[in-house]
Amino acid sequence: MPTIVQKFGGTSVADPERIMRCAARVVEARKAGNRVVVVVSAMGHTTDELITLASKVSGAPSPREMDMLMSTGEQVSVALMAMALHSLGCDAVSMTGAQAGIDTDNAYRKARIARIDNARLERVLGAGAVPVVCGFQGLSPDGDITTLGRGGSDTTAVALAAALDVASDGGTCEIFTDVDGVYTADPRLVPTASKLRHISYEEMLELASVGAAVMHPRAVLFGEKFGVPIHVRHSQKPDVGTLIVPEEQIMEDIVVVGCALKPDLGRISLKGLPRTAGIQAQILEPIAAANVSVDDIVQTEFGDTTTIAFTVEHGDIADVKGTCQGLIERLGRGEIDVEIGLSKISAVGTGMKSHTGVASRMFRALAEAGIPIHNITTSEIKISCIVDRQHGERGLQLVHDAFGLAAGDGVTADMQSTGRGRR
Amino acid sequence: MPTIVQKFGGTSVADPERIMRCAARVVEARKAGNRVVVVVSAMGHTTDELITLASKVSGAPSPREMDMLMSTGEQVSVALMAMALHSLGCDAVSMTGAQAGIDTDNAYRKARIARIDNARLERVLGAGAVPVVCGFQGLSPDGDITTLGRGGSDTTAVALAAALDVASDGGTCEIFTDVDGVYTADPRLVPTASKLRHISYEEMLELASVGAAVMHPRAVLFGEKFGVPIHVRHSQKPDVGTLIVPEEQIMEDIVVVGCALKPDLGRISLKGLPRTAGIQAQILEPIAAANVSVDDIVQTEFGDTTTIAFTVEHGDIADVKGTCQGLIERLGRGEIDVEIGLSKISAVGTGMKSHTGVASRMFRALAEAGIPIHNITTSEIKISCIVDRQHGERGLQLVHDAFGLAAGDGVTADMQSTGRGRR
Repeated sequence: MPTIVQKFGGTSVADPERIMRCAARVVEARKAGNRVVVVVSAMGHTTDELITLASKVSGAPSPREMDMLMSTGEQVSVALMAMALHSLGCDAVSMTGAQAGIDTDNAYRKARIARIDNARLERVLGAGAVPVVCGFQGLSPDGDITTLGRGGSDTTAVALAAALDVASDGGTCEIFTDVDGVYTADPRLVPTASKLRHISYEEMLELASVGAAVMHPRAVLFGEKFGVPIHVRHSQKPDVGTLIVPEEQIMEDIVVVGCALKPDLGRISLKGLPRTAGIQAQILEPIAAANVSVDDIVQTEFGDTTTIAFTVEHGDIADVKGTCQGLIERLGRGEIDVEIGLSKISAVGTGMKSHTGVASRMFRALAEAGIPIHNITTSEIKISCIVDRQHGERGLQLVHDAFGLAAGDGVTADMQSTGRGRR
Repeated sequence: MPTIVQKFGGTSVADPERIMRCAARVVEARKAGNRVVVVVSAMGHTTDELITLASKVSGAPSPREMDMLMSTGEQVSVALMAMALHSLGCDAVSMTGAQAGIDTDNAYRKARIARIDNARLERVLGAGAVPVVCGFQGLSPDGDITTLGRGGSDTTAVALAAALDVASDGGTCEIFTDVDGVYTADPRLVPTASKLRHISYEEMLELASVGAAVMHPRAVLFGEKFGVPIHVRHSQKPDVGTLIVPEEQIMEDIVVVGCALKPDLGRISLKGLPRTAGIQAQILEPIAAANVSVDDIVQTEFGDTTTIAFTVEHGDIADVKGTCQGLIERLGRGEIDVEIGLSKISAVGTGMKSHTGVASRMFRALAEAGIPIHNITTSEIKISCIVDRQHGERGLQLVHDAFGLAAGDGVTADMQSTGRGRR
């Protein structure tokens, strides 16, 4: 009997009515002949409310106490979900992360899962009941409650699916969310975007890194590591969503699976730096320490000087500029140039590995529309172009369509039904 | 160094500002040279909010899931209290019931404490920190969260005080509440009522049973069993409150320590019942099973018939009448008589054991005021009189003053300072 882990996010369980609807989906999955494990997040705005409470008693709450506090959000959700399942005549047992056997390290607020003892989960499943597990939390070696940080509930779901080896009997980890799958581009920006039926872990990770916020990369990485098929689907719609699977399970020849936009970037260029070894680390380490993510790093050399340029989100520019200013003063040379109002358009697909001409197709699409490209970066399965912000959305649409991703293009209905199509 | 367990109820921690004030009291107790353990209840209306949520997903929520849900209320409180203590520069570690080593039985929603392993508490205390423990909860033998039911947080506090043997080094269990101690009568009804400095466990229990709702009897019984001195005091006032201690520690000759009123009672009389053995159990068992508390049971016999009368709260009359009607139908004889609009005035004091004339002093006070007594019941340390409701409050005041309990009466300031006075 296949085992399915179903994860419902905060919006999906925001009120008792929605919890009842999620419970109905669990019952449906059971009727379809599956063993089901449920993972839930905290209800809607609970997390924000708890953070507000904490801020009123402490300017800098201790991470341990924050985890004690925040973990109650999911605990409320699991109890209500178990009750809702009981109301529908479905046996269910709620569990904290600790009760579900999720052991983590000691890093409060951003704990890593160290081990999952699935004994109790298997016992509950064996008794024909649905374990309803708190997402986002675990137990430290000292017996304290930890939370997993960003993407924690998705990670819990994928980790439980791995611990229960759902792939071995045709099961999946279903991530229910407020979008109905992974699209070739954000449908709010690109009306012709279409839903993907499959995407590889690697592609999903790249898409997330360039701006597609469907699933947290951490959970995808976990899925990749343990080969857990992840099914992203809409919590209020019955449709099949998008399956994230190993690349070798995807049988088709689509070169680019999706495009994404990072709309608000700035570029910081440090010019006239000395060509000393380690200059890159001197610049980037203090920025990373401030938790700012830096991208599209380009280094050029001229005579005995070096120029290093990179992009950051608009909101981080002031901080990063300050950090760089300090460095230049210490070095006694160099200058800072800041450009704002940039966007980044990216195209992602494992097909790029074996196909040529992918980059030029993208450049041509932008050039034909008269959109200047300020910078280009590539990875094995990704091409990114920096453009002026006013060209961002139109450029995204053009690149998307240039790769034949628009709904109706390329893949036929017949191909979809044979499982070869991705859309 | 004395160990003090400080328990703050839901009203005392209803918002972040009050939590900060409670934290300040903890710091004060530490500065005075004590080791301090804190027990907190859920904030204000949290419990009601959680019950409402549960009612929206289930008509009859499972007790296990209710405990999973309700226990989050205290968990939020301990985290916030620990953060508040940190803000005041006081080291503190929040703990769930399970983390504090509180093992219970499996009776969800009304679990009994089976054992307390104080190892972690002692470790935290030994490190100079304040353990902040969730009231009202523990861990079942199956590793599930249980709640202790009514009076649970007070019981947690007293049980922890017992497990830490606070009495051995001059410590106490402080119950902070919204009254400033135990009074000779409810000051809202009897303006001359005065605060007691000491009361015995037995007296406190009797007073609670006849209407004084200062502390839950369960926690008092726990205190009595393990000899834990309990200090009832106001959470927002610095004053010393009332100490509940073993009778032998109270050195004075006050006969009656307090009076109380149950204002809204009804009396149900079952007349013409057969004089068969076990008739009392036949009547009272189904009433007890419905969780109705019955009091002032009087049985009289006439020929081959028996009359059994008892009092119940007004709100329970309809239910109890229905139950009794069923019994009479099954017996094929007997009739039901219901009186409503009654009140019960009680006087309590261990001094009654050795003093005579206590009852008659009470009867005379009521008689002189022309208040008819419908029924009298007594225990070793209590006398109760049933009167018409319209005489309840005045009767209480008269009886209270007749025993010399009015503020300023009897005990002198000098006696108080020698520790002999109770007020």
